[in-house]
Formats: sequence, structure tokens, C-alpha cells
Amino acid sequence: MDDITYKPIGSIRTPFKKQAGMPIQPSGAQGVRGTVKIKKDYIGGLKDLEGFSHIILIYHLHLSQGYSLNVIPFLDDQLRGVFATRAPRRPNSIGLSIVKLNAVEGDILEIENVDIVDGTPLLDIKPYIPEFDAQTEVKTGWLAEVDEQVKQVKSDNRFNAGKKV
Amino acid sequence: MDDITYKPIGSIRTPFKKQAGMPIQPSGAQGVRGTVKIKKDYIGGLKDLEGFSHIILIYHLHLSQGYSLNVIPFLDDQLRGVFATRAPRRPNSIGLSIVKLNAVEGDILEIENVDIVDGTPLLDIKPYIPEFDAQTEVKTGWLAEVDEQVKQVKSDNRFNAGKKV
Repeated sequence: MDDITYKPIGSIRTPFKKQAGMPIQPSGAQGVRGTVKIKKDYIGGLKDLEGFSHIILIYHLHLSQGYSLNVIPFLDDQLRGVFATRAPRRPNSIGLSIVKLNAVEGDILEIENVDIVDGTPLLDIKPYIPEFDAQTEVKTGWLAEVDEQVKQVKSDNRFNAGKKV
Repeated sequence: MDDITYKPIGSIRTPFKKQAGMPIQPSGAQGVRGTVKIKKDYIGGLKDLEGFSHIILIYHLHLSQGYSLNVIPFLDDQLRGVFATRAPRRPNSIGLSIVKLNAVEGDILEIENVDIVDGTPLLDIKPYIPEFDAQTEVKTGWLAEVDEQVKQVKSDNRFNAGKKV
């Protein structure tokens, strides 16, 4: 299969107008609020979503240009394989964040714990279901040593379109 | 932003040649093994991945045709908004599974707890990081009532390209 084409279903509004200074992940974005505006054609798909406290947002990292197979994560000083990081300069610029869902009103979702740059095109929403999505007995490789630091570290300008570890 | 185009970075091999009979999610796919074959151009991005016990696979639901804004999930008898389900007939046919990573050998990942149909094009791999991805105090709306049944229920032919709740 060759090219795969998607169309944004909406866009994400957040306080982060650029990457510098952004939290690296939702855990460092505790309490940061944003909204998702869904395009008219897709509003019907939001039915029943408000019963979920958390949702998975899949979006296009629209500021990321090109990719690197190896990157130095924010939290490290060594080159790591890009698929072993959450860095944005990936072969396919797909971002994923799990956020708290506070309210659904018409075409607007009120969300919290946001680590996404303002204006990001949204591709999909999925309900967060612990039985499917929460894993136990997890090992986190290179990140394990620096895991404790994550909440404190803010992103810098290391990546052109940079955020995330 | 209009169309967004991605290219598969590899493909996923599993025992499931068609959707019927597939487990609905990884929790029902305990122990089912598969492999991911990464295209030559992207192998360098796998460095350091083997330190992670679990990975997030983002893939294209290639058998899904068209979409519905409301679907009757396998586990329910009422129409639900598609974004409140994991059903495949979504506006953008993006699938997400968290699987166990058993080994990385060259261009092959050995994975376990697989709920993906054989031949699925892979778009991205991310490390699973509990601090980012595991949520607590979660509510799961309509699914809460039927959550306990998930592990037992197998998919049927309800969806053309069907799997997942």
C-alpha cells in the first residue's frame, strides 16, 4: 500500500502558540486547558463521548518538517532511535495525547492536561479505556532513569517543531 | 489544512486473516503473537526500542471502507457516536493498539497481545510510557456496564471491516 490520506476532523486550541516552553507530555501539562473544535460534518460522531473522563487525541504534528531516524530527546544527551521517543520529527508526523475530557458542548470539547500546540489539526478521537490502554509491569528503557524528571522539564528549541521526549 | 498524507513504515503480521473471530482489543488477545516488519529505510529508528516492554502501534485500518458517525458496538445494542467507540469505520481509519514487545531483531519486532488483522500497514511506533499513557480515576461511559464482558466476547461480522468495540 502506498500513500494514505486523511482529512482533519477538527482542530485543537491551546495556550501554546509555539513549541518552546511547552510541557513535554500531559503529565507535565497538569491543569492546562484547551478546546477541540469539531467540523460540522463530524459532530454526530461525538454522541456518548461525554461519559468518558479521558480521551485519546490523534493529531497531525503540523509544524514538524522532515524527520530524523535518531534524535537526542529533551531528557537525554544521547542519540536515540526516533521510534523509542515521542519526538515530533517522525517519518509520519502523528501525535498522540491522552487528555481529560471536561465537557462536550455542541462542536466543542473542553479538555485538560494539554501538551499540544495551538492550531493542531485533529485526525481522530478514541475513548480511553483502561482495560485496553493501561498496561502494568512496564519497562521504559532509556527513559526509566530520567522518568522522575519529566514533570519538571520544559521543552526548549532543540527540535524545529519540537516537543515531547 | 486539507489532506494529510502518510506512508506506511512497515506492515503487521498476525494470525488473523480476516476480521471475523478477532479479539476485540488487546485485553482479549492475551498471548496472541505477531510480528512487525519495518521497511529498510526506517530500521535506524528502532534503536533503543528493545528497552521498552510495551509499544503503541498506530496503523491504517486498511479493510475499513467509508465511515458511520454512529455505530452499534459489538458490546452493546444501541447506536453510539463513533468517537465514543473503537470501531474501525471512522472518518479517518486510524487504529491504535498497545502491545507487548518481546524482541527486536533487525527489521522485525516480535509482539504479543495482538488484535490486528494480518497485513495491516503500520504508520508509527511510540514507546508506551505509563507516566504519560496510564490514567487513573477513569470513567468509561456506556462501556462501564459491559466492561467485564470484553475479554470473553469475540468479534462477529457486524462491521464490514469490523473489529473492536
